[in-house]
Amino acid sequence: MPSSRADEEARPLARALADWRLPATKTGKPRALADFDPAAKPFSSGSKAQDKEAVDALAVELDALQDIFFADKRFKLLVVLQGTDTAGKDGTVRGVFARMSPLGVRTVGWKAPTEAERAHDYLWRIHREMPGAGEVMVFNRSHYEDVLVPVVNGWITPEQTQQRYRQINDFERLLSETGTVILKFLLHISFEEQRKRLQERVDDPTKHWKFSLDDLSARKQWPDYQKAYGALLGATSTEWAPWTIVPSDSKTHRNLMIASVLRDTLQGLGLRYPDPNPQLKGLKVE
Amino acid sequence: MPSSRADEEARPLARALADWRLPATKTGKPRALADFDPAAKPFSSGSKAQDKEAVDALAVELDALQDIFFADKRFKLLVVLQGTDTAGKDGTVRGVFARMSPLGVRTVGWKAPTEAERAHDYLWRIHREMPGAGEVMVFNRSHYEDVLVPVVNGWITPEQTQQRYRQINDFERLLSETGTVILKFLLHISFEEQRKRLQERVDDPTKHWKFSLDDLSARKQWPDYQKAYGALLGATSTEWAPWTIVPSDSKTHRNLMIASVLRDTLQGLGLRYPDPNPQLKGLKVE
Repeated sequence: MPSSRADEEARPLARALADWRLPATKTGKPRALADFDPAAKPFSSGSKAQDKEAVDALAVELDALQDIFFADKRFKLLVVLQGTDTAGKDGTVRGVFARMSPLGVRTVGWKAPTEAERAHDYLWRIHREMPGAGEVMVFNRSHYEDVLVPVVNGWITPEQTQQRYRQINDFERLLSETGTVILKFLLHISFEEQRKRLQERVDDPTKHWKFSLDDLSARKQWPDYQKAYGALLGATSTEWAPWTIVPSDSKTHRNLMIASVLRDTLQGLGLRYPDPNPQLKGLKVE
Repeated sequence: MPSSRADEEARPLARALADWRLPATKTGKPRALADFDPAAKPFSSGSKAQDKEAVDALAVELDALQDIFFADKRFKLLVVLQGTDTAGKDGTVRGVFARMSPLGVRTVGWKAPTEAERAHDYLWRIHREMPGAGEVMVFNRSHYEDVLVPVVNGWITPEQTQQRYRQINDFERLLSETGTVILKFLLHISFEEQRKRLQERVDDPTKHWKFSLDDLSARKQWPDYQKAYGALLGATSTEWAPWTIVPSDSKTHRNLMIASVLRDTLQGLGLRYPDPNPQLKGLKVE
């Protein structure tokens, strides 16, 4: 059961989240990303220093919760991080998940499929990497790339795109029904914020390695990507795997929000250490 | 395109198959296995010797077709063999698939899940073994065991069973929509035929290794298994992955029927070797 502390905090958290967690839409109608302010800070205390402290405190809490999650073994947790280049996916992995034990937390950074992967359906490689009981899996990009890149570049028809939305919803429903908790975060930044971050990568020799000329071609397709994101958000936010839009122009706020939602989600599961084996009662180890 | 020989043969084949290939039922209503005669021989010429020759001839044809299938790479083929103990799953693998090149044909014999497999959803291990482009995969037992053993033993509720039917249909639809041709065969034998075959295994020292006392407990649950099969046949015969009931009291007929359906299916795909690379035209290898 959630602790009383969690109960206390649940209401403000739910309120802060309300505008950013997308409801399951029956119609699958596209959402307009422009309706969401990437500079908003719904989870902020107002002080950046305090927010940073809160992220640190949350990381410690999450580490403890993950330990019970691992022992409990009734659930699996899949965290999907999506967002344009520089939106902060790597930063989130480091800022939110780095404190948890690698024993029960894995990360996959999805790239373009290999030849062997392309020989199978696009969810084949995804299914293989699903977390097992008690595990936390963090996806840096995901199967949602398969309804972004091919859509923006016109490699698949609108009918094929709709078919993929359905396939993804069905797939995630299977996962959910078999014990996987799915949290999908869209890291949402502004066009101007991306410009700044790309410029930083160009100017800073310690960040050069993160920069690729491909990033500039993707940047030219910004409106198309925003549209493709809007469409997938409307079509694949489901009861069993809702999308949360994370305003991410502020990195601190981004980490604070994601860590808070994670903490809240884990606390809501009523995690517990397994009951001790009754045969252990009174056992003397000699 | 199918050869003219195939055209000639297509009509009688379709007629022979009509009573045994289950249509996609919208209602998902259970089928009664008792309505299907396990001793029937819809594909037989009437002469066992001729039928055996036909199986041999088909094996050669299938080998040639598989070679084009492998080169063509537009499709994947999944063959599911289900049936009670002694129904002839191993015999089918040997009798129908042994002549094809192991390069493009793989077989998986599914056993009870391991601990690592049980940590994931029941379709996780199945998805991993799906054929890639140009490959033929033969399943000796399959994910359908997950709607048989737990159903017969009451480990899952009727609601969970229905949920699994839906999950399986969704999963197979994804496979089909992404290029996998799915053929599902139920090897159907009579209670008396099973008795004979089990007795043979007990009496014949070369067959002892195939016998397990568990087979006798499963035999005691015969009516329950027949009922569970009837239910899954009604619920999971779909447009994209229909079930074919194969009357299997005769081993020769069983092989003949499965090989014929396979040949017909592969011929119907319009397989072709890929077009030569235009750069090869006039190329002199020196």
